[in-house]
Amino acid sequence: MKLIDTDILVLGGGPAALVTVSTALQNYPDKKITLIKEDEISLVPCGIPYIFGKTLAQSSKNIMPFSPAVAEKTTIITDTATSVDIESKTLYANSHKITFDKLVFATGSTPFVHKSFEDALHLKNVFTIQKCKEKIDQLKDYLEDKQKVIIIGTGFIGVEMATELRSIGKDVTIVGGRHILAGSFDVDMAIEAEKIMQEMGIELVLGQYASRIVQSGSLAEGIELCDGGRIDGDVIILATGYQPNTQLAKNAGLKLAHYGGIWVDEYMRTKNKDIFAVGDCCGRRDFITRDPSKVMLASTSASEARVAGSSLYGLQYLKGFNGTIAIFSTMIGNRAFASAGVTEDRAKKENIDYTVGYFQGLNRHPGTIPDASKQSVKLIAIRSSGQIIGGQVIGDKEAGEVINIIGLAIETELSAHHLVSLQVATQPLLTAAPTTYPIIKAAEQIIQARFQ
Amino acid sequence: MKLIDTDILVLGGGPAALVTVSTALQNYPDKKITLIKEDEISLVPCGIPYIFGKTLAQSSKNIMPFSPAVAEKTTIITDTATSVDIESKTLYANSHKITFDKLVFATGSTPFVHKSFEDALHLKNVFTIQKCKEKIDQLKDYLEDKQKVIIIGTGFIGVEMATELRSIGKDVTIVGGRHILAGSFDVDMAIEAEKIMQEMGIELVLGQYASRIVQSGSLAEGIELCDGGRIDGDVIILATGYQPNTQLAKNAGLKLAHYGGIWVDEYMRTKNKDIFAVGDCCGRRDFITRDPSKVMLASTSASEARVAGSSLYGLQYLKGFNGTIAIFSTMIGNRAFASAGVTEDRAKKENIDYTVGYFQGLNRHPGTIPDASKQSVKLIAIRSSGQIIGGQVIGDKEAGEVINIIGLAIETELSAHHLVSLQVATQPLLTAAPTTYPIIKAAEQIIQARFQ
Repeated sequence: MKLIDTDILVLGGGPAALVTVSTALQNYPDKKITLIKEDEISLVPCGIPYIFGKTLAQSSKNIMPFSPAVAEKTTIITDTATSVDIESKTLYANSHKITFDKLVFATGSTPFVHKSFEDALHLKNVFTIQKCKEKIDQLKDYLEDKQKVIIIGTGFIGVEMATELRSIGKDVTIVGGRHILAGSFDVDMAIEAEKIMQEMGIELVLGQYASRIVQSGSLAEGIELCDGGRIDGDVIILATGYQPNTQLAKNAGLKLAHYGGIWVDEYMRTKNKDIFAVGDCCGRRDFITRDPSKVMLASTSASEARVAGSSLYGLQYLKGFNGTIAIFSTMIGNRAFASAGVTEDRAKKENIDYTVGYFQGLNRHPGTIPDASKQSVKLIAIRSSGQIIGGQVIGDKEAGEVINIIGLAIETELSAHHLVSLQVATQPLLTAAPTTYPIIKAAEQIIQARFQ
Repeated sequence: MKLIDTDILVLGGGPAALVTVSTALQNYPDKKITLIKEDEISLVPCGIPYIFGKTLAQSSKNIMPFSPAVAEKTTIITDTATSVDIESKTLYANSHKITFDKLVFATGSTPFVHKSFEDALHLKNVFTIQKCKEKIDQLKDYLEDKQKVIIIGTGFIGVEMATELRSIGKDVTIVGGRHILAGSFDVDMAIEAEKIMQEMGIELVLGQYASRIVQSGSLAEGIELCDGGRIDGDVIILATGYQPNTQLAKNAGLKLAHYGGIWVDEYMRTKNKDIFAVGDCCGRRDFITRDPSKVMLASTSASEARVAGSSLYGLQYLKGFNGTIAIFSTMIGNRAFASAGVTEDRAKKENIDYTVGYFQGLNRHPGTIPDASKQSVKLIAIRSSGQIIGGQVIGDKEAGEVINIIGLAIETELSAHHLVSLQVATQPLLTAAPTTYPIIKAAEQIIQARFQ
């Protein structure tokens, strides 16, 4: 048992932990910082699907690097934490006892599996997507000589796994809700993504759910659908979401929020001002309703980690924006799909009096520029004020940054009136035309809609 | 002489005119709108350099389209306006007399030529870049069998002309200030662009100016430099900026601003509330100092046109942001260069107490993603408050939208503290990593710099 005393102790190995450490290093250069993580090697979480296709092709190409500053100035321990005693400010691990002044939980999340599938988890060909190199390598090895893959779950991970596995010639069936990516895209946008997946030859089984995994000895043979239908497969991947990894925090007596995340205030502090939690293990709030949010994103985690890492010894600035805006992007085929804030569907559910602006233009100008392609922007705004509360973008790769313009507009509580006179850089080879910049044109529609 | 009576008359054929018309159509669907323009066909102004290389290769691929709504609901006249009588609200053209209720000048700009070169303009092989299809075709035809091109001026048009002409094998020499794109990029960023141009085989003659064009009969033989050196060439292109085209407005008695633009208030109104001016022909103000600004950009023009087009019969909203932030982007080789707000150099000149944040990362994550390349972000902020007043980006094509995030941060008066907890969408195939998103990392540096 090795004894260590540290000022700041960060527990975890993902982006939240890493960013907490690097932010703390910047803000408290004189403090002793220790990171304890379970695995020697951390994977880039959102890169995991790309290990399975041609994009990265191997897990060793998806390693999260430690910056030289972090590696040099931080004590990094690979060990499994077993308990935390908040009273004595001590963390116990298999072979370490660490006393700390400030503790940050960044223990991440583990796959969520429906009760009805739990029994099937021991089968050789049923997998979840765990953020652990060893487990990912096991799945990749197993897939090597298998042809028929069933993916249960149509969130980002399920969809990205489907497209990557299809790209290396697997027969892929994906099973899930009425439309894919339902939390982030309205039906009008989702069907464009579904069309591309179908063109790629992916079998979409939508508006269904898998009621049972059919076993035969130590293997799954396939799944049974709620309508009684059956799909056979060589491998079944459960991509049905993640849940906060909070056992340690719970055992330590920390308060949990809804959905099992560690309760934190807007500055990522638990009820104890010396204990913080960041990333997927903490309880998140929605930016519109402040209700608990299930959103799990590395970028949200990084944002939380920057707040925590600079607030450990007292708040240094007030956060400009509260809650999680759920800002995502992904690529399906050669099109990027991105979303921020609330969808139209969600606005309806929350009983928001909203209006929509939609514009489809091109991402270059004039349209004769060789790589020009369509760019669609949908904006959702509060009807009375025109305040932007959501947006969705489909386009080429630039859509990944266009959504960040919309995200910033949401965070800064801009209205459509602000957006219509926005000064944007436009350039033939790089962007839409100044005359038809899609965000601005969609904002115009929101203003017009108010008069109708 | 044809007599026409209209409610709204827009004078011009560029993006400012077009957007004024389409915005007015949306806001005042019951008004009669007339557009009078000099040329039958309008070119996309920022697409002009790409006519000369392989990208567009012909002017017919660079035509600015009129939307069906505009074409259908607007009276479009091709004629040359000769005078405006503000008293009687009448515009006279060669073969039209048009009475109006509201008039919008969108007469654009014409090439600015230094006094010392004016005499050379009549030479067969000396050209300016005019926003007129006929003139562009003339230059393109002339260049056909010529090899040595000298470009005077290192602004965006000069640089874009240089790279496009080089891409089709011309020997190109570009002559100008100490560094290219000096108004928009600091030296540290500009030298990266210069390196690429040199690698392309473009001859850069910097820190010099052309003192004289050397004539021989009806042709120019080359130029003489201020240090006495001489460069020979087959064609000389003057890319030394543009000046507002305001003769008509001046003759009508409208007040002019500095640099000759038509004086307008923040709502694009001249001193006469029925007469507006938008685009390059109007006087602009800098967003930092409110001093006159020489910036001429189609995107700025479009923004002004949206303000004017919705304010013709009374202001409908207060502008959220005053002044021109000079937000540009371009491509040099396969790298995008983008800039918004003030450069470090300008901040010094304005005696602003500023700090700088700079981060170079990658535009994908992990760095093993096949098309990953460097992305550099430089932010300039007021030291005391951390308020962002400028930014520069070098990257792949996504940089064209990254600068618009920075532009929005400037327009909404965000500080570096806001930016560090920004929620951004990050995705392996589309963006930088959540842990090292360059805008956020540069903002962190600004905060750190304040403590030093």
